[in-house]
Amino acid sequence: MATRPYNFSAGPAAMPEAVLQRAASELTSWNGCGMGVMEMSHRGPEFMSICEQAESDLRELLAVPKHFQILFMQGGGLAENAIVPLNLSRGQTADYIVSGSWSEKSRVEAERYCTVNVAASTQEQGFRQLPDLQHARFSSSPAYVHLCSNETIDGVEFHTLPELAALGVDAPLVIDCSSHIASRPVDWSRVGLAYGGAQKNLGPAGLTLVVVRDDLLGQALPACPSAFNYKTVAANRSMFNTPPTFAIYMAGLTFQWLKEQGGISEVEARNIQKAKLLYGFIDASRLYESRVRPDSRSRMNVPFFLRDESLDDAFLQGAKEAGLLQLKGHKSVGGMRASIYNAMPLEGVQALVNYMRQFESANT
Amino acid sequence: MATRPYNFSAGPAAMPEAVLQRAASELTSWNGCGMGVMEMSHRGPEFMSICEQAESDLRELLAVPKHFQILFMQGGGLAENAIVPLNLSRGQTADYIVSGSWSEKSRVEAERYCTVNVAASTQEQGFRQLPDLQHARFSSSPAYVHLCSNETIDGVEFHTLPELAALGVDAPLVIDCSSHIASRPVDWSRVGLAYGGAQKNLGPAGLTLVVVRDDLLGQALPACPSAFNYKTVAANRSMFNTPPTFAIYMAGLTFQWLKEQGGISEVEARNIQKAKLLYGFIDASRLYESRVRPDSRSRMNVPFFLRDESLDDAFLQGAKEAGLLQLKGHKSVGGMRASIYNAMPLEGVQALVNYMRQFESANT
Repeated sequence: MATRPYNFSAGPAAMPEAVLQRAASELTSWNGCGMGVMEMSHRGPEFMSICEQAESDLRELLAVPKHFQILFMQGGGLAENAIVPLNLSRGQTADYIVSGSWSEKSRVEAERYCTVNVAASTQEQGFRQLPDLQHARFSSSPAYVHLCSNETIDGVEFHTLPELAALGVDAPLVIDCSSHIASRPVDWSRVGLAYGGAQKNLGPAGLTLVVVRDDLLGQALPACPSAFNYKTVAANRSMFNTPPTFAIYMAGLTFQWLKEQGGISEVEARNIQKAKLLYGFIDASRLYESRVRPDSRSRMNVPFFLRDESLDDAFLQGAKEAGLLQLKGHKSVGGMRASIYNAMPLEGVQALVNYMRQFESANT
Repeated sequence: MATRPYNFSAGPAAMPEAVLQRAASELTSWNGCGMGVMEMSHRGPEFMSICEQAESDLRELLAVPKHFQILFMQGGGLAENAIVPLNLSRGQTADYIVSGSWSEKSRVEAERYCTVNVAASTQEQGFRQLPDLQHARFSSSPAYVHLCSNETIDGVEFHTLPELAALGVDAPLVIDCSSHIASRPVDWSRVGLAYGGAQKNLGPAGLTLVVVRDDLLGQALPACPSAFNYKTVAANRSMFNTPPTFAIYMAGLTFQWLKEQGGISEVEARNIQKAKLLYGFIDASRLYESRVRPDSRSRMNVPFFLRDESLDDAFLQGAKEAGLLQLKGHKSVGGMRASIYNAMPLEGVQALVNYMRQFESANT
């Protein structure tokens, strides 16, 4: 039995209650030192140990190879939309794969810094399916290829990352994985750089994770602010500027929690189970529908619609009364959205399905 | 009697214990809503109310006029060193007043984006006094004039902001006030833009405060990332990208605490009293010395030295045992530094002085 309502927010999103309770218990004094984590010098031994542990746990959890740097930065995915081309475009063309609202935003921002080639897009199809990369129009020698591996708003997920070399492209793959990082293993052999805001699956808003291959450091444009130059950040172990210390600590507690759950493969198995339960129910119902093609559906973000949208308000009101929070869909898409990140237990999805079933019975 | 040691960290720095306790008590459920602040959508009514209250309390506390925007951003002072010229330099010359390590860093970073004229510098004097602005060499029509109104490392503070018009300069004054914001009132008639990392006097690291006059918006260079374009951030009420929600909430609790203390003028009076006590003791002692000229001394950051530096380690060890933490000076300056921000009570400074007196007696 949950002690709190189930929170389906797309982000900032629900965190494991055990993580929050641990943080509350040591907010005024960490490990008996008389200082809370927010009050520590980032260069002192206490915080250094917290930060190093977080980095090491994440490296273990995601099996990040040694030739990748783990950077803790600021600004979220939207800032990275500029920081990536500032660091990697080298005045060349960059290829963008547009599969939803977030990769479209990335494309638009990149045009400030380089020539952008849209290699593939599903915009005309309303972002309801993954693009067919076999027929993508890559440029001849892009500085990098960018995609959003899970579109939070549209609910479209790359379940396998493309192998660019097999597509005839010799360029690093850059992925915005904000909304599914740590929900499944990452095939680092296919990735040059991965970035994501922490506020979905890792911790609080205000922390940005960047995992970058060593050979991509040191190529920044002169206009790149020092605080966002990956080489500078890496050389200073994420301490060039004062990092978001408390957010790193919370992410570190989340990494420990993930390890206690059995690691990423166990968490992935639960995420598959949760998504199967919810999509299966939606597909079998007469009231609800998913508009995303089955092979492209996100395990983390499940947009769905009531076929009779005049019932939307009643659905949301009843959900809130049933202890099911933040189910309203993104304004650009409408309808509903259930975000079922790592911190959402199977019981939460079961409770949602039970409510949806009852609501359907009572209203059709 | 304090329940915790006194923490003299320069930043991230001690926060009011009452603020931390309040945060701990509602970390898993804010205001009975069943979600912690870290778990709320930034666009939902709960967080919107938190953010609006924080902004309104800060506006009241610092008497920020209506024609200034209050922005909650990310990246800290070091990122702002780039973001300021990206937004304000317009390809013109910017004037920098160099009075310590931080303004020197600001100057260096600005050179990425514009021609920089050093109007005044005390670098040759070792940053131990304020520059004489009556004899500064301003350029003929600078885009702006930048100074750091309190140098955290060197302990040099502008107790009065210069009136640029009276110095014959028609340009907005930009101040980096990271380490003394909210320690005293601000004369906004002399300021075009004020910025600061939150982690000294306002809240946790990861939040940057920018207060900018309306007429300075909309001049950003094309290379300015959208997430750091003041006009874009202002137009979206600090919600263009997901803001550091929990840090804003903590800053908001700190603003409420400041109001409970009697507001900024009362806090300033205490800060004057604390600084007077500590500098007075140092100046009267034979073991300790302040190397900053008396009229230039910071009320917030008090670097001091033991005339016999072979006693440094023993001093720090004894201080820790006496419950006086993080007194080691910045590596670039050496010696000791006591940062006595708003959250440091007079009793903490008295405890420090008592310890320093006992240590001097026992060691000279």
